[in-house]
Amino acid sequence: MNVDPHNALVVGVDYGTLSGRAVVVRVRDGAELGSAVHPYAHAVMETELTAGPSRQRLAPDWALQVPADYVEVLATAVPAALAAAEAAHGIDRADVIGIGTDFTACTMVPVTADGTPLNELEAFADRPHAYVKLWKHHAAQGQADRINELAHARGESWIKRYGGLISSEWEFAKGLQILEEDREVYDAIEHWVEAADWIVWQLCGQYVRNACTAGYKGILQDGEYPSRDFLAALNPDFADFVTAKVEHPIGQLGQSAGTLTADAARITGLPEGIAVAVGNVDAHVTAPAAAAVEPGQMVAIMGTSTCHVMNSDTLAEVPGMCGVVEGGIVEGLWGYEAGQSGVGDIFGWFVSSAVPPTYVEAAAARGLGVHEYLTELAAEQEIGEHGLVALDWHSGNRSVLVDHELSGLVVGQTLTTRPEDTYRALLEATAFGTRTIVETFAAAGVPVTELVVAGGLLKNRLLMQIYADVTRLPLSTITSEQGPALGSAIHAAVAAGAYDDVRAAAQVMGRREVAAYTPDEDRAQRYDALFAEYTALHDHFGRGGNDVMHRLKAIRRDAVGRRLATGTAGVDADDPAGDAAAASVPQEVTA
Amino acid sequence: MNVDPHNALVVGVDYGTLSGRAVVVRVRDGAELGSAVHPYAHAVMETELTAGPSRQRLAPDWALQVPADYVEVLATAVPAALAAAEAAHGIDRADVIGIGTDFTACTMVPVTADGTPLNELEAFADRPHAYVKLWKHHAAQGQADRINELAHARGESWIKRYGGLISSEWEFAKGLQILEEDREVYDAIEHWVEAADWIVWQLCGQYVRNACTAGYKGILQDGEYPSRDFLAALNPDFADFVTAKVEHPIGQLGQSAGTLTADAARITGLPEGIAVAVGNVDAHVTAPAAAAVEPGQMVAIMGTSTCHVMNSDTLAEVPGMCGVVEGGIVEGLWGYEAGQSGVGDIFGWFVSSAVPPTYVEAAAARGLGVHEYLTELAAEQEIGEHGLVALDWHSGNRSVLVDHELSGLVVGQTLTTRPEDTYRALLEATAFGTRTIVETFAAAGVPVTELVVAGGLLKNRLLMQIYADVTRLPLSTITSEQGPALGSAIHAAVAAGAYDDVRAAAQVMGRREVAAYTPDEDRAQRYDALFAEYTALHDHFGRGGNDVMHRLKAIRRDAVGRRLATGTAGVDADDPAGDAAAASVPQEVTA
Repeated sequence: MNVDPHNALVVGVDYGTLSGRAVVVRVRDGAELGSAVHPYAHAVMETELTAGPSRQRLAPDWALQVPADYVEVLATAVPAALAAAEAAHGIDRADVIGIGTDFTACTMVPVTADGTPLNELEAFADRPHAYVKLWKHHAAQGQADRINELAHARGESWIKRYGGLISSEWEFAKGLQILEEDREVYDAIEHWVEAADWIVWQLCGQYVRNACTAGYKGILQDGEYPSRDFLAALNPDFADFVTAKVEHPIGQLGQSAGTLTADAARITGLPEGIAVAVGNVDAHVTAPAAAAVEPGQMVAIMGTSTCHVMNSDTLAEVPGMCGVVEGGIVEGLWGYEAGQSGVGDIFGWFVSSAVPPTYVEAAAARGLGVHEYLTELAAEQEIGEHGLVALDWHSGNRSVLVDHELSGLVVGQTLTTRPEDTYRALLEATAFGTRTIVETFAAAGVPVTELVVAGGLLKNRLLMQIYADVTRLPLSTITSEQGPALGSAIHAAVAAGAYDDVRAAAQVMGRREVAAYTPDEDRAQRYDALFAEYTALHDHFGRGGNDVMHRLKAIRRDAVGRRLATGTAGVDADDPAGDAAAASVPQEVTA
Repeated sequence: MNVDPHNALVVGVDYGTLSGRAVVVRVRDGAELGSAVHPYAHAVMETELTAGPSRQRLAPDWALQVPADYVEVLATAVPAALAAAEAAHGIDRADVIGIGTDFTACTMVPVTADGTPLNELEAFADRPHAYVKLWKHHAAQGQADRINELAHARGESWIKRYGGLISSEWEFAKGLQILEEDREVYDAIEHWVEAADWIVWQLCGQYVRNACTAGYKGILQDGEYPSRDFLAALNPDFADFVTAKVEHPIGQLGQSAGTLTADAARITGLPEGIAVAVGNVDAHVTAPAAAAVEPGQMVAIMGTSTCHVMNSDTLAEVPGMCGVVEGGIVEGLWGYEAGQSGVGDIFGWFVSSAVPPTYVEAAAARGLGVHEYLTELAAEQEIGEHGLVALDWHSGNRSVLVDHELSGLVVGQTLTTRPEDTYRALLEATAFGTRTIVETFAAAGVPVTELVVAGGLLKNRLLMQIYADVTRLPLSTITSEQGPALGSAIHAAVAAGAYDDVRAAAQVMGRREVAAYTPDEDRAQRYDALFAEYTALHDHFGRGGNDVMHRLKAIRRDAVGRRLATGTAGVDADDPAGDAAAASVPQEVTA
């Protein structure tokens, strides 16, 4: 391929939860020249298996996908992005020198030796366990609990690399679930493959296991997986899980996994033989897209939840981190990951369930969404004027407490508390959660010097300013609206040899608005007072001072079980609730 | 007067916050034969003095009324009630043998020696301090704080009779405020009179100070008021407050204060010379109206807030009670009072500020109010299914913590928490608050054996069942819809000599549905688990474990002060909030 470096292009493909997005990017400056999105035909199958020969119900907490839907993105979004770039910028697709991809994780595909997904075999088409287990498949919680208990009991060294907790979302829990629930499917699995790697396999015909998911989701630490002894102690039949289904040569991020096959060239419209980058994860590729891969630059991808990724040149055991992986973000540095379980989804829950009609109408009359309207009202307040402090644990706490049984708390409400007051308290709570993570990293010897925000929430300027003030960090914002896809394109450029490494490529192709928000010391001091309250509540309810949240979850589970068992409500089963509420004054009885 | 006992009638008049209600009651059985309501022309003056020669602004926390408005009730509602009883039951008004009244408290009238309210003197008509200070006039908080501080510093024995706290609503704080803010008005006061007694004075021409308010609001304990020394220490010019303006012969509840004057007979249409009962308080007269004046019967008047009154034959110092007064409810027993600052108004706040349009529309489609709709949904749940515990302190906590700086708390919310979940948690929180009071009384040696509910909230049957289950007490409900007016009528009957005492009259004329709700032991045990959580939170946040609520109030006050001082919002004063919320992605800056 003889491509003029001035014209060289790459394609990045970002596989999200509901769709895949392709973008055509210019190698010399990272300019995004064309893009296209394609939704998955089967979306996420959570209540029903719709892709099999007959529909069947799925148990709670399941989340499946269909591998062919991913291939369809290659066949539709990639050509469409190319066509868009041709139309808008007159590009020549012959100038494309590489393709890179990123995926949700941990999203797992059970396949045969040649990479055929088991659900595509007639024998397994009606077996839910033969389908892709999407990251948010949480039905392996029981298996995850056992993994964690056993790891702590045995003092496994790797558990500390994950803040003490292996997630039910990850490779081992999901694999063990299949073993214990559908032995035939389990036995048929010849590779238990990250979707991030499976899609690369489809492009280049090679299975290369990427270092990122192998480390963060596959428990590969210092070249070792959990031992055969450990696996056997979980379940004797699980002893060879690693050797039989998981273990595979590792590809470093930014390396080439191979070259585009003739078949893949045909369906994508890309030149055969171009570089195919090693697979990667959506959150992690966002760091180079924001040109933020140096030690101390914490990238927060803020959406329904927040994922934090940051590089460091040192290894530390940060309490409550999600994982630390050598080369997990870029080769040669330790990649740290942390997370907040609930952020945008807490705001969304509040807006949909706790905002009265007058506000919804006022927002509509102003042509604003309810979020924007509440933000506008909240922005008019002085810090602390609402008199509230909240804990942002509606979905539990990922970092730094790693406790999914925690729940939300708001303190300080009075009869004058308005929706914008509580809304602002929730915004602030998530900022306090980020500060807690930043301070925990710093205390462990991994200082954070810049907060780099990507994701949909960066559009809320009040929220961004709160984060800057609360953390006392300069807050930069990614300027690409398709950060992950740009990040994948950067990896494609490196894989194609256009740059020496991802760090170098990121400096040229990635971009952010540096210090778009800067902390104000006066405001920061006033937030300190609220953060002190947050911390006191955080530690009281999160570190054993009062385990009420755990007990309430247990009480709730018992109560739901009781209702399902009896089919009746707790009170007045024989007294229709409508009557109960609107009842007239009862019969007189003279005392 | 020669009235056939079979036909004898009495009139009760209940003076509420916004109106007065008169009811005509048959002495032999308590039957209510006619009633009428008359609103006060000036309602409550809270922001502006509208009754003077010119309008003037009032400071925050003021609440004034006009004495002539009370007289107007006598001139309109009483004749209207008589007319209604004549029309419906053919009564003869010549059969009326007495009239009784009850009033809000502590509501104070500054008057001359002959009972003329100072605001009716031309010299004082434009002086706010010359008007009635309604119970909810809270502008004497500074004076109340000094009274409490001094009482504790001096170890005054009477302070324990009030749970350690004299309210800003009561006689001494309000009187001291006048001294310190309008000396001329203060000097002109010859009697500082409870409205409860002033209205009786208008009826019978005699000033008789009732034992109830003298005890609960006037700090009369064991025949003594706070000492001259104490008063002088508050303010040297306050030394003779008791002797010059407060001290006056006491009338016991149920006694006659005198007989109806010719003038009063003319305006009311009642026979001259009938008995006029000693004044009383709305909450306290409700106990006989519910036939619940025996020791152990705790009467809870449940509306926006809850007032608990209960008799006992023993004196005890119950922590956090509002007051204990000998003869405070009926002669010969110790009358205890306790309270919950927020009950119905918490539910109301939630419904108006935290329920989304979908619910409001669904309620309307069903022809239900939002309260009724939420109650219906909440009733379908098992106990504990919502996974929540709340503290009912949105208006602070009256009993047993006596701390108005406390605030609301809810713990356990998740992204699946629905409005009916939080609503039920708030219902339960108020029941837990009542149980805390009941248990505190029991622990102090004043056991509660029956919970008797009056007030608007008794119509919510779910709420009533929750209270029965949570307290493990039989819950009776008053069956009169005009409880206080009936209670005043009972006092009129006793004052007229138709019964020996209020206890005897209450057994005949009062009524309730005995044990309308009974506790279910299985449900009670499940509530025990939630109550244990409530108690842990109650003690942690209310007894010094974490004073976050106090600090948040202080932070809020500072913040409001800052905003008022600067006239700007905390963040982005130069950046309209609408833009802040809906901003597009910022300018690109290549890193």
